[in-house]
Amino acid sequence: MPDDGDIEILLVEDNPDDVELTLHALKRYKLANRIDVVRDGEEALDYLFGRGAYSRRDLSRRPRVVLLDLKLPKVDGLEVLKAMKADPATRSIPVVMLTSSREERDVVASYKLGVNSFIVKPVDFEQFVDAVRQMGYYWLLLNHPPVE
Amino acid sequence: MPDDGDIEILLVEDNPDDVELTLHALKRYKLANRIDVVRDGEEALDYLFGRGAYSRRDLSRRPRVVLLDLKLPKVDGLEVLKAMKADPATRSIPVVMLTSSREERDVVASYKLGVNSFIVKPVDFEQFVDAVRQMGYYWLLLNHPPVE
Repeated sequence: MPDDGDIEILLVEDNPDDVELTLHALKRYKLANRIDVVRDGEEALDYLFGRGAYSRRDLSRRPRVVLLDLKLPKVDGLEVLKAMKADPATRSIPVVMLTSSREERDVVASYKLGVNSFIVKPVDFEQFVDAVRQMGYYWLLLNHPPVE
Repeated sequence: MPDDGDIEILLVEDNPDDVELTLHALKRYKLANRIDVVRDGEEALDYLFGRGAYSRRDLSRRPRVVLLDLKLPKVDGLEVLKAMKADPATRSIPVVMLTSSREERDVVASYKLGVNSFIVKPVDFEQFVDAVRQMGYYWLLLNHPPVE
């Protein structure tokens, strides 16, 4: 297990209810100690590439997984994914696209851009919590991250 | 859930014990009805691209996930991964690299080539079965596949 200071998850989500529920589920099952949250695609890019308010962030500390909402203000999830997968510095970070819709074109576009996984958020509360638990378990405990 | 005829998993594995254990775990938890198994990297490429013994295979039937052993006879796992991610017809199929070692260069190379996930096979029997169960659940039930 990484120590407390390691960033385990970067959650990119503008919906406050989804943020709260995701954090609740991850903490309830003790799956992650440190989760950083950004609220739109522009902030996600600043965070990942050390720009703007994050210009002093230590970029060698990479999240083990990015949970990326598809519909985001300012810069949408597909654009964030595209930028991450186009840059050697961020390409290897696993990205799980999260969305409330299952529009086929979003699925196709995400895979084309190299998303690691695509998950449709369950509408039901308990199912949502369970999906977050499974995701946390899979990406934090089972998957071997690109760099330790 | 896909019907019985859908290929849910392509397992690329040369170790008969690992094949047996993986099939056992997936069936025990009723996670997959149809799992195709190939035993080396060359056969995996024939299967995926409809060549050789698989020249009559319907390529529109794509597995929902490929579990790909890293060390394989004839053509190794990294070469199979590279070929899959270089071809638009197979690029979107999720690939989970499985390995018994955790050599850093294999991890780095796999992520560089666009692997979706990298998993170190647990040595312990029960832990192996549990890892297969988690993988099956994640990729067959939680992850939205590229094409339905």
